Amino acid sequence: MATRNLLLLPGDGIGPEAMAEVRKLIAAMNDKLGSGFATEEGLVGGSAYDAHGQAISDADMAKAMAADAVLFGAVGGPKWDAVPYEVRPEAGLLRLRKDMELFANLRPAICYPALASSSSLRQEVVEGLDILIVRELTGGVYFGEPKQIIDLGNGQKRGIDTQVYDTFEIERISGVAFELARTRQNRVTSMEKRNVMKSGVLWNEVVTATHKAKYADVKLDHMLADAGGMQLVRWPKQFDVIVTDNLFGDMLSDVAAMLTGSLGMLPSASLGAPDALTGKRKALYEPVHGSAPDIAGQGIANPIAMIASFAMCLRYSFNMVAEADRLEAAIAAVLDDGLRTKDIMSEGKTEVGTTQMGDAIIAKF
Amino acid sequence: MATRNLLLLPGDGIGPEAMAEVRKLIAAMNDKLGSGFATEEGLVGGSAYDAHGQAISDADMAKAMAADAVLFGAVGGPKWDAVPYEVRPEAGLLRLRKDMELFANLRPAICYPALASSSSLRQEVVEGLDILIVRELTGGVYFGEPKQIIDLGNGQKRGIDTQVYDTFEIERISGVAFELARTRQNRVTSMEKRNVMKSGVLWNEVVTATHKAKYADVKLDHMLADAGGMQLVRWPKQFDVIVTDNLFGDMLSDVAAMLTGSLGMLPSASLGAPDALTGKRKALYEPVHGSAPDIAGQGIANPIAMIASFAMCLRYSFNMVAEADRLEAAIAAVLDDGLRTKDIMSEGKTEVGTTQMGDAIIAKF
Ligand SMILES: CC(C)[C@H](C(=O)O)[C@@H](O)C(=O)O
Ligand SMILES: CC(C)[C@H](C(=O)O)[C@@H](O)C(=O)O
Repeated sequence: MATRNLLLLPGDGIGPEAMAEVRKLIAAMNDKLGSGFATEEGLVGGSAYDAHGQAISDADMAKAMAADAVLFGAVGGPKWDAVPYEVRPEAGLLRLRKDMELFANLRPAICYPALASSSSLRQEVVEGLDILIVRELTGGVYFGEPKQIIDLGNGQKRGIDTQVYDTFEIERISGVAFELARTRQNRVTSMEKRNVMKSGVLWNEVVTATHKAKYADVKLDHMLADAGGMQLVRWPKQFDVIVTDNLFGDMLSDVAAMLTGSLGMLPSASLGAPDALTGKRKALYEPVHGSAPDIAGQGIANPIAMIASFAMCLRYSFNMVAEADRLEAAIAAVLDDGLRTKDIMSEGKTEVGTTQMGDAIIAKF
Repeated sequence: MATRNLLLLPGDGIGPEAMAEVRKLIAAMNDKLGSGFATEEGLVGGSAYDAHGQAISDADMAKAMAADAVLFGAVGGPKWDAVPYEVRPEAGLLRLRKDMELFANLRPAICYPALASSSSLRQEVVEGLDILIVRELTGGVYFGEPKQIIDLGNGQKRGIDTQVYDTFEIERISGVAFELARTRQNRVTSMEKRNVMKSGVLWNEVVTATHKAKYADVKLDHMLADAGGMQLVRWPKQFDVIVTDNLFGDMLSDVAAMLTGSLGMLPSASLGAPDALTGKRKALYEPVHGSAPDIAGQGIANPIAMIASFAMCLRYSFNMVAEADRLEAAIAAVLDDGLRTKDIMSEGKTEVGTTQMGDAIIAKF
């Protein structure tokens, strides 16, 4: 069996602790299933800055470009609040997304049955929730130029960011959303602010045209992004797949994640286009939670989102669908058994640390 | 007593029905209290487009500029989905905001005790909620140039919007937030995406400097806007005043509004700077809900948000604090009596239409 090459970028805060559990899982899969994973390690974010003054080194970027998939922990923390903008921790993640052309960010918002009661929303509103946010990840206001601060004199500065979307970018991300919808409930809701933004007008136009040309079998709705945020809070189960731009996707997927009461549980996949010859696509997998510097190093972080991100990796990068299903089932089983890390602890359950949670999932796998 | 000049712009959808209740209230106040309101009427949105091909006419803009305050209903509806971008219904509202320089949008998210059970959030999460979102309203991506769609040929177009903030704009909106915080719990949370946007970097810098220079007695926190969205869903009571830019404010205030379960109840005020000589400021008052074309004309719309917007008008434009308090108390009393329009109806309560709700509030006032 061909070697499966993974680059592990644990990053900062709780990233390394969470990644340690995936490392154990990979070793177990190699041992027991002969899965043939080969791993390399790299630095990203504040830890990369501390080591060599950059949010990710060119050498590690080269490894990322060469790997079959990248597993990413988290970046950032107060320690690096004052570093120059260009080398702030997030710049490492943004460079990975941009240079690897990971335009499609898949963010499932799933409410684990065992956790429905830990949501701030009423149980009936979130129980059984299963939506997928497809966020455009390499365009929009994140990368558009000009992006700068100009000194106007007289104590006045001007901060400028530019939201830019081209037809082809909207076409390809909506294609991903429609394809994924076909494997689910076959419904897509596209969100933008076409009543205020010209990029929103174009977004709406291109999604509509793509739908008509190739995906007319999928049900398509359009919603203004602000109304979409409201509807997510009001009745999230109305959605199946949501497709939206980089900035709205950032906001809406975070709101959706929080709805589930399972923030520490939610994975994401960032995918490039399939190679024309090999069909392979570059990919990065990352928990939705951040680096949580306040609890880092205490052994109490929830490793489930990182492990679930690895399950997405099995599914999307290696087509190991059975293994991905089993890993997801193992996570659900451990929760059903009542194991909880501190962030999701509730009365009558058994509180465990990061390692114990990882071990328990591996044991069930 | 000097005449108080109001311009009424009912707009589209349920706007006119809601405004009719305020018109009755104004008549009652003139009659019984000698409040001396003089009203003019104008058209905005789709109804203005139908009448004269513009989202607001120059004549009505002139009336708005001359009035002491503008009461605004709602704009938009499927009927005008295909009108040219420049004259779409929203353009009328955006022109009012821009030409009147209404840079400060105040959006209270209050959970009426009688309605805590109609929120999709758990009762303990929203009961007693009282936060104020201060949204910048005349800058950012709403108005920055270039804002256009370019034809690139080969079937490709490019949609561009520009987010622009100058120091003075951030200074004045954060000043409003700090001032208002002093009348409340004295806490401000500023939200931006400084990890991705240069305008966010400047925003953070200017809010921090303004705080230090003039408002050091107020507690100031900074939060990334995506994390802010999450925290609003997780535990909204952690916030007192939130200050943020035009686009984040649009999203976050809608999410906050929905949390309360009282969307049909929430008012907003959009204020300009006080005149250097007279101290008067231009102002527009508007319910947070939209035009709701699906229920327009049926007499079932909830007029409370529009009436509560008028209460804000009494408070902020005419310093009629006692009357504003009494009007807000009348709204709460009617809810306590069990009266509900359809949107907030629940078991054991009495369902009433728009007019009955308006009459009941006026009777309690
Ligand atoms: C860390 C930050 C740059 C990033 C983003 O804004 O995209 C994060 O919030 C996310 O959603 O992945
Ligand atoms: C109608 C629309 C232009 C407006 C906005 O986006 O500002 C609305 O959503 C609001 O929040 O007042």
